[in-house]
Amino acid sequence: MIHAPDLQQIVTEIADEMRRRSDRGEVATYIPELARADPAKFGIAVIDAQGRVAMGGDAEEPFSIQSISKVFTLTLALGRVGDRLWRKVGREPSGSAFNSIVQLEYEMGVPRNPFINAGAIAVTDTILSGHKPREALGDILRFMHFVADDTAIVIDETVAASESRTGFRNAALANYMKAFGVLDNPVDYTLGVYFHHCAIAMSCRQLAMAGRFLAHQGKNPSTGFTVVPAERARRINAIMLMCGHYDGSGEFAYRVGLPGKSGVGGGILAIAPDKASIAVWSPGLDDTGNSHLGRIALEALTQRMGWSVFGA
Amino acid sequence: MIHAPDLQQIVTEIADEMRRRSDRGEVATYIPELARADPAKFGIAVIDAQGRVAMGGDAEEPFSIQSISKVFTLTLALGRVGDRLWRKVGREPSGSAFNSIVQLEYEMGVPRNPFINAGAIAVTDTILSGHKPREALGDILRFMHFVADDTAIVIDETVAASESRTGFRNAALANYMKAFGVLDNPVDYTLGVYFHHCAIAMSCRQLAMAGRFLAHQGKNPSTGFTVVPAERARRINAIMLMCGHYDGSGEFAYRVGLPGKSGVGGGILAIAPDKASIAVWSPGLDDTGNSHLGRIALEALTQRMGWSVFGA
Amino acid sequence: MIHAPDLQQIVTEIADEMRRRSDRGEVATYIPELARADPAKFGIAVIDAQGRVAMGGDAEEPFSIQSISKVFTLTLALGRVGDRLWRKVGREPSGSAFNSIVQLEYEMGVPRNPFINAGAIAVTDTILSGHKPREALGDILRFMHFVADDTAIVIDETVAASESRTGFRNAALANYMKAFGVLDNPVDYTLGVYFHHCAIAMSCRQLAMAGRFLAHQGKNPSTGFTVVPAERARRINAIMLMCGHYDGSGEFAYRVGLPGKSGVGGGILAIAPDKASIAVWSPGLDDTGNSHLGRIALEALTQRMGWSVFGA
Amino acid sequence: MIHAPDLQQIVTEIADEMRRRSDRGEVATYIPELARADPAKFGIAVIDAQGRVAMGGDAEEPFSIQSISKVFTLTLALGRVGDRLWRKVGREPSGSAFNSIVQLEYEMGVPRNPFINAGAIAVTDTILSGHKPREALGDILRFMHFVADDTAIVIDETVAASESRTGFRNAALANYMKAFGVLDNPVDYTLGVYFHHCAIAMSCRQLAMAGRFLAHQGKNPSTGFTVVPAERARRINAIMLMCGHYDGSGEFAYRVGLPGKSGVGGGILAIAPDKASIAVWSPGLDDTGNSHLGRIALEALTQRMGWSVFGA
Repeated sequence: MIHAPDLQQIVTEIADEMRRRSDRGEVATYIPELARADPAKFGIAVIDAQGRVAMGGDAEEPFSIQSISKVFTLTLALGRVGDRLWRKVGREPSGSAFNSIVQLEYEMGVPRNPFINAGAIAVTDTILSGHKPREALGDILRFMHFVADDTAIVIDETVAASESRTGFRNAALANYMKAFGVLDNPVDYTLGVYFHHCAIAMSCRQLAMAGRFLAHQGKNPSTGFTVVPAERARRINAIMLMCGHYDGSGEFAYRVGLPGKSGVGGGILAIAPDKASIAVWSPGLDDTGNSHLGRIALEALTQRMGWSVFGA
Repeated sequence: MIHAPDLQQIVTEIADEMRRRSDRGEVATYIPELARADPAKFGIAVIDAQGRVAMGGDAEEPFSIQSISKVFTLTLALGRVGDRLWRKVGREPSGSAFNSIVQLEYEMGVPRNPFINAGAIAVTDTILSGHKPREALGDILRFMHFVADDTAIVIDETVAASESRTGFRNAALANYMKAFGVLDNPVDYTLGVYFHHCAIAMSCRQLAMAGRFLAHQGKNPSTGFTVVPAERARRINAIMLMCGHYDGSGEFAYRVGLPGKSGVGGGILAIAPDKASIAVWSPGLDDTGNSHLGRIALEALTQRMGWSVFGA
Repeated sequence: MIHAPDLQQIVTEIADEMRRRSDRGEVATYIPELARADPAKFGIAVIDAQGRVAMGGDAEEPFSIQSISKVFTLTLALGRVGDRLWRKVGREPSGSAFNSIVQLEYEMGVPRNPFINAGAIAVTDTILSGHKPREALGDILRFMHFVADDTAIVIDETVAASESRTGFRNAALANYMKAFGVLDNPVDYTLGVYFHHCAIAMSCRQLAMAGRFLAHQGKNPSTGFTVVPAERARRINAIMLMCGHYDGSGEFAYRVGLPGKSGVGGGILAIAPDKASIAVWSPGLDDTGNSHLGRIALEALTQRMGWSVFGA
Repeated sequence: MIHAPDLQQIVTEIADEMRRRSDRGEVATYIPELARADPAKFGIAVIDAQGRVAMGGDAEEPFSIQSISKVFTLTLALGRVGDRLWRKVGREPSGSAFNSIVQLEYEMGVPRNPFINAGAIAVTDTILSGHKPREALGDILRFMHFVADDTAIVIDETVAASESRTGFRNAALANYMKAFGVLDNPVDYTLGVYFHHCAIAMSCRQLAMAGRFLAHQGKNPSTGFTVVPAERARRINAIMLMCGHYDGSGEFAYRVGLPGKSGVGGGILAIAPDKASIAVWSPGLDDTGNSHLGRIALEALTQRMGWSVFGA
């Protein structure tokens, strides 16, 4: 009889291997809060279908989830407006950098997918939908508490303020979409909510908890609550695989073989469908803006567990 | 006890549903051989891990596989030069049309992936590698015979001649890459081999046979022959999912949830990892150049069989 | 003995011909103030080296000069910072629409020339240079009074307010340049001054007066005041010829053969070097955004007067 | 009484100044024949309305005129098909490099102007017009003999052969236009003629002779022969000013202020309308691909003679 590989042992091994590596990528420097992150940090948390939690390294330390929040705002927006969302944003990989504005001009202000900055701003605009920024942010935070089953998750206001002060390129994207009628709310409102949800701070453990519904047919297997229908969970996973790592999405699919979404804070949420929800964190980024050790750790995990969606 | 869904019954149902649909897309018209295809045709063949073959509609009728051949030339080239191939071609989705030349200029003649035309021409150039076009074509055809376990597969010379006569846009791509030193062989040689391998004619049954190694860890489960290592099979599947349907790849992942590669002749090869190799054919294309009914049939099949890689 | 053509007679003829034409282009509609302009209007004013003023049609009626103001802000900025201006903006035609953002991404936030919107915003930022918007606007208006020798010229505040309310595309351009460090002042300040100087209202006669220094070696021949050195006047004329009509600049040079700058309000300022300063106005635009009858009238004037810079 | 500046004296001074400069740009290296050019060479020839020839430096030494030939093929093509030429090629500056293919994709295979490579290939295709390459080349050469009044001008076959062997990027442009139906003749024929007319060798004196019709209302003032109507000469001058120096056209207009056309062999033909035809040659190029000393010499000449079209 063949035993299943021991998840906690593999996670521990991987955390050890990552701790020893000297190649750690470059920490993002565009705001001081991110620039101060310690490149020596590495955390990993994996939660399987039975709710067993395996952790390694700095898995309990909160970090700025940044673009990973886009998975949850997409889920929330789809819950609000359903397929009408797709009038404002596409579902194709962009073939360009996360903050490129070129494609917006060629495609009349409609961003290619919900995970590039322009697309996530359009999704945020849908959540606002006439409300005040404070209310929309409250909704987003309550949704995070719900999916992670954890009311301790908060927004780091210092990060949000820094992003607002320096976010000219995102302001360019938002104004450009506004010019094409893609945004309904005042540009400042939409940007304000966007900068704030990107500033949510979570630990690997919290993030892996929050991703469980995507691994398990739309349901949180512990609470039993349905977050989305199973088909929608599959579809969000598909978008994560296609577009979750900006212009490194192909590389992530090729090496890791799981749906995932990265953030410039060094976190990655990855989903092994029907098997596990996984979060890794290491602040150093590779040249496509994705966590360098995070990707390497996920590649090791997928191989050792046999979790690639592309075959045994 | 829950019974597995009956594959042949589902395939028969889908073939019936497709026969009754009036929306059939538009047949490609750029060469007379493709323009003559009957839009009423629909075929489907599914081969599972045990080698059971389920077929529906015109599953035994040969059609021009066109770009689907790129999966096999990629496999062959990786077998020849391994990861050195990636010096000449990337692995990221292109975010633009299959025959776009814009990206080539911005990225110094290196195509984004092996499944856009420029990338497939670069792959073909690698297979040529100093040999005569006739020898390279012989190698490709022998490889098709091997993976499909069928020596009856041939090239349609009339189609190849038509492509050569009208392939100015592909000639532009090839000359452009030659200018950047990405192609090693004479442009005419490389284009000649490219036009010919796109003109291979196969039935759905033959194509599903040829794709089996991608579904089963690199091995043909009937013959027992290993075509590629398991990791390479997974990686080719990853590239198919990311890039297999041009600028409709996101849509295909979102709706079907399987790695797949389409051709302008109306065929699609799709892989359900560890479960089945699937080929569909219907000549009418949607506005991204992929088989309209082919995609719809695959969406139905995946849902009914629960085969999406993104979760149950 | 050959008599010089009689300027007033030719101007009267042209005004008559324009009045009779039924092809009048399309009035700009993006703000109500411009949309209300009467397409039947046509005005022309020509002032020669001796100060003789020839007028036809609605030459005394003020209109929104819009982008024509960019000639004067360029002149003012060059007076302030000299050639340092060219660190922030280029001198090459753009090969794209007046409000395109694509080029900014490919060229790191530096606009191609001072007459596309992005370039004019960068020039405006230079004039601001740490001052309050009100002071910068005062400077610009005083400069207009000086060059036109007319203190009656004012800003149409209603137009400025409309532009501010709807100028999202310009806000995108400004934020984009700010992200690249090309703008020094707060985005709102720079945009505020930009929207206001585009809202200056002038008649053809006033505009032709204001352009005289460009026709006469940098000097206003009536007042005797030197506005710029002769070389700078030539260089501003060169930029007008190359870039003054957005993506219709080639057409204007080909047909009219004079340096000129158009505005979306339907005005064009044209310079016949050493001969005359010319202003025309007709609100209907052609498909490159330039005054339809304005260009035709200038073509007729240049031909009849033999004023093309490209030869007799 | 003010004397006109003495042309020969100024030309001699400029040739001396150029000889002493150490900044000479970089010689083109893409074919050995150009790479062998001596960067120390500098020649200048100016022919005024009275036919007086002023020369300096290596004004009698033949060089490869390269893209300067495009002025003459444009003239010949307009003579053949008149304004129908403009169905195949535009008249706007390109805003990109001379050999860019990006714009062709966005504008459906129609090049922006006759002086970028794609445009000149389209013009050459018009001259071919069903004839054999040899006949078209004969026509072009006879036209050069006619406008230069010199039957000694020949094509350098070694240069033409080198260009053919390495001209993959031009082959890409030609095939791309062929795909859009912009070229009528076989791609090889059109490219063959194009590579050959770019390989015409002329001295500065011969080139200045050949340009005289553009300076003098379409007529060669010595022979009295009319080459084109005066309006067409003005219009060709306009296109030269707008597009004659690739993505350095704005810079040339700004500094020199004359219509001109440069070639990668280091030559520039410049026209002072109604005053003179000018040719300069120095093989070192600046970073926009135009003769470094050639441009500097023309700037000096224009200033000292007061010949700028933009004013005294």
